[in-house]
Amino acid sequence: MKALIICAGRGSRLSSLTESLPKPLLELLGLRLIERVILSLREAGIREFYLVLGYRGEQIKAFLGDGKNYQVKIEYLENPDWEKGNGISVLIAKEHLKEKFLLVMADHIFDPELVKDLLRQEIAMDECLLAVDTEPAEYQDISEATKVKLSDSKIIAISKELGDFDGLDCGIFLCTSAIFPALEESIKRGDDTLTGGVRVLAERGKMRAFSISPKFWIDIDTEKDLVKAEKLLLKNLSKPTDGPVSKYLNRPLSTRLTRFLVRTRLTPNQLTFISFLISLLAGGLFALGKYPALVLGGIMAQFASILDGCDGEVAKLKFQKSDYGAWFDAVLDRYADALLILGACFGHWLVYHQLSIWLVGFFAILGGFMNSYTAVKYDAIFIQNQRSPKFRIGRDLRLFLIFLAGLFNQVWMVLLLLAILTNLESLRRLYSLKPKSEIVLKKELESSL
Amino acid sequence: MKALIICAGRGSRLSSLTESLPKPLLELLGLRLIERVILSLREAGIREFYLVLGYRGEQIKAFLGDGKNYQVKIEYLENPDWEKGNGISVLIAKEHLKEKFLLVMADHIFDPELVKDLLRQEIAMDECLLAVDTEPAEYQDISEATKVKLSDSKIIAISKELGDFDGLDCGIFLCTSAIFPALEESIKRGDDTLTGGVRVLAERGKMRAFSISPKFWIDIDTEKDLVKAEKLLLKNLSKPTDGPVSKYLNRPLSTRLTRFLVRTRLTPNQLTFISFLISLLAGGLFALGKYPALVLGGIMAQFASILDGCDGEVAKLKFQKSDYGAWFDAVLDRYADALLILGACFGHWLVYHQLSIWLVGFFAILGGFMNSYTAVKYDAIFIQNQRSPKFRIGRDLRLFLIFLAGLFNQVWMVLLLLAILTNLESLRRLYSLKPKSEIVLKKELESSL
Repeated sequence: MKALIICAGRGSRLSSLTESLPKPLLELLGLRLIERVILSLREAGIREFYLVLGYRGEQIKAFLGDGKNYQVKIEYLENPDWEKGNGISVLIAKEHLKEKFLLVMADHIFDPELVKDLLRQEIAMDECLLAVDTEPAEYQDISEATKVKLSDSKIIAISKELGDFDGLDCGIFLCTSAIFPALEESIKRGDDTLTGGVRVLAERGKMRAFSISPKFWIDIDTEKDLVKAEKLLLKNLSKPTDGPVSKYLNRPLSTRLTRFLVRTRLTPNQLTFISFLISLLAGGLFALGKYPALVLGGIMAQFASILDGCDGEVAKLKFQKSDYGAWFDAVLDRYADALLILGACFGHWLVYHQLSIWLVGFFAILGGFMNSYTAVKYDAIFIQNQRSPKFRIGRDLRLFLIFLAGLFNQVWMVLLLLAILTNLESLRRLYSLKPKSEIVLKKELESSL
Repeated sequence: MKALIICAGRGSRLSSLTESLPKPLLELLGLRLIERVILSLREAGIREFYLVLGYRGEQIKAFLGDGKNYQVKIEYLENPDWEKGNGISVLIAKEHLKEKFLLVMADHIFDPELVKDLLRQEIAMDECLLAVDTEPAEYQDISEATKVKLSDSKIIAISKELGDFDGLDCGIFLCTSAIFPALEESIKRGDDTLTGGVRVLAERGKMRAFSISPKFWIDIDTEKDLVKAEKLLLKNLSKPTDGPVSKYLNRPLSTRLTRFLVRTRLTPNQLTFISFLISLLAGGLFALGKYPALVLGGIMAQFASILDGCDGEVAKLKFQKSDYGAWFDAVLDRYADALLILGACFGHWLVYHQLSIWLVGFFAILGGFMNSYTAVKYDAIFIQNQRSPKFRIGRDLRLFLIFLAGLFNQVWMVLLLLAILTNLESLRRLYSLKPKSEIVLKKELESSL
C-alpha cells in the first residue's frame, strides 16, 4: 500500500515559525513533523510515499531526498496552486494512485497503531474510509476541528460548523480512487477543499467512518498545538509493565530528560551504554566501602536507573526501536546490576570483614537475575491477561533499594531484603504460571478394561 | 478437520503379542500405538476422531474412552467384517465424513510435522492426496511396503509388486468423500482393500502424491518394526542447539535413560525437579570442600546434566511438552547452576581461605547466567540462519567443566576458566548480533539544503 501525504499548505497560523521554513519541517521532539508522519506510517507497514509539495516545497524535497535514509521510497508531486484549497493537492495524485491508498496530512501527529487498525479495514472500490475520533480527549481544540455526523458507520455530514456532531475528522483516510471524481465534482460546485470531496462521497453514501478512540492524534495548527503534541507524545511513553518506582519517580524524570536527549545525536544504544557506565561508576563507589562514597554511589545508581528509561523513550520517539536495542539494553542491565551488587559486597567486606555479605549478595544477584529471566514469559502473560499484579519486583525497585542502601549506609540489610524479595517473587511466578489442565496418559491397561 | 483412524485389523504378523491385545494397544516408549497416533494428530491440530474398530475393538474403546483424557473427541464405528480387506473399514465411515478428512492407520508411527505439512495442501473436492516417501530411509522394509509410480505429482500405479516405483505409500491420506465411491467401485471389481480404492482414483487421474521426505514414518507390522520405531523416535530427540558435550556424551546417555523413564509415571516436570535436587546435592558435596566429596559432587553434577535432557525427551515422546515445562526447566536450571557454583566457592573458601574465589565464582555465575539469558535471542537467530556456531558455551559444557573441577580438585582454575569463557561468549553475542543497517535521521536542516 502507498501513502499520499499533503505537504503543500502555508501553515499561516504558525507564520512566525513558517516564514523561512515550511510547516512540515518544523521540529517536534527531535524529528521534523513530516519525518514523524513518514516514520509513523513506515511503522504501520507502508514503504512507498507520494508527497504533494507547495509552499517552500524545494526545502522539503532537499531535506527528505528519495527516502533512502528512512528505508522508504518517496516521490514528489508539485501543486503550483497550493494557495487554493487542499482538495487540489489531493487531485494532483489522480494519475499515480489507481489502487487503495492511505491519505494523510503532513501536520497531523498520530499513534502508528491507529494506522495499523485502519489498514486492517475492508473497503469497497467505490468508497472511502475516514478515521474519526468519537470520544475526543480534552486536549483537542474542538472549535477548530472538522466535525462529522454519523448514521451507523456512514458519514452523513461534515463541516467545521456542525453544532450536532458524533466525532472529529482526524485527517487520516483509507482511500480508493473514488475520491478523485468526488473532488472534481466538488470543485465544479465551487468547493476546492478535501472536505468538499468527502461531502460529495457522503451524499452518495460512500463515505464511511472508522472510530479510532482512544488512540491519540493531533492536528498541529498553532504553537500551542506543538506544545500539546509534545506533552502527548511524552505521556505516551509509559509502559504497562512499569513498576511503582518507575511509574511515580523514574518515568516523570526520564521523560523530562528525554525531551532534551531527542534533540541530540545520541542514539538509544549509546544512551544504554552511558547508563551502563554510570552503573559501573556507582558500583566502583560502593566498592570503596566508606559512607560518603556509598551516598554518591546510591545517587549514581538511581540516576542510572532513570537514564535507563531514556534509551527506550528516545528510541520510541525517533522510531529507532529495534529488537537488538531492547536485547542490548537487557544484557547490559543484567551486567550492571550484578557488578553494582558485587561492588557493594566488596565495599562492605573491606570495611566490616563479614563473610555473610558474600552469601547475602549472592542471593540478591541471583534473585534479581531470576526476576529478569522469568519476566520474559511472565510479562507476556501479564500483558495478555491485562491483570495488573498487586506488587511487582522490577529493576526500578531493586535499584531504588540500592539507592537507599547507599543513602542510609545499610548495604547488608538491603541486600538481605533484596535476596528475600526477589527470590520469593521467582517462586510466586513459578507457582502462578502453572497451567491448570493437562493431557492425562493412562498407564495401566488392565485397570481400564 | 476430522481424522479417520483404521484400528480394525488383526496384526497377524505380530500374533505372539496380539493374542490377547489388539495391535493398536501395543506399547511403544510409554504410549500405546493408537495413543501415539491420536496425540501426533492432535499436535497437528486435529481434535475430532472416528476410530473404526474390528479385532478386539472393545478393548480399544475401553482404553481410550471418549477421548476427554487426551483433550479430543473420539467416536467409534464397528466393522464386523474386519477380517476382510481394509477398504471395507474405510467405507464404514461414509455417512460420517462429508467434508475433507485425514485418513491414517493405527499402526503407523510418523512425525507430526509430516501431518502439519500435509494439512497445508490444497485439494479439489473430487481428489485425494496420499503421503508418499520418495526417498525411503534404509530402515524401511521396501519388500513389504506398498509402492507407487508417479507422473508429475499424480499417482499412476499402486501395488506391493511394482518393480519400477517412485516412492512408498505412507498410509496417510488427505481425503475427500471421493474415496467412498472409488472404494465401492473397487469392491465391485473384487478388490476390498484401500489400495484398490486408491487405484480406482488413480485411473481417473484423481489421486495425487505428497512427498514427505525426509520426515520419518514407519509401518509397524512385526516385532522388528517395533524395535526400529523405538530407535527412530529416540534418534529424533536430538536438537540443533545441542552443544558438543550434549551431542556426544549427554544425549546418547539421556536417551537410554529416557527409554526407561517413559515407561514410568514420572512427568517431565517431576524429572526437571529431580534433576534440580541432584544439582543441589552436588552443590552440597562441593560445599564440603574436601577432595573425595568434590569427586562425588562432580559426578552428581554431570549426572544432573544428563538427567536434564530427559525431561524434554520424555515430554516430546509422550506429548507432554508445554511452554510452562520449558520455562520451569529453564528457571530451575539457572538456580541449580548458581547454587552449584556457590557450593564450590564456599567449599574452596572453607579449605583454602582464598578471598579471590568469591570474585572468580561471581564472574562464573554471572557469565553462565548471561549465556542463558542471551540465548533466548541468539538461539532463535541461529536456528533461523541454519548456521552452526563454531563453538558454543552451553549448560552442557559448563556442567562438564564442573565435573572435571571435582574430578581433578581444581575448583579455582575451572571457575576462572568458566568466568572467562562465558563472559567472552556474551561479548561475542552482543557483537555478532548487531544489525547492519539502520534508519538515518538527519539532524541539521541547514546542511542538507
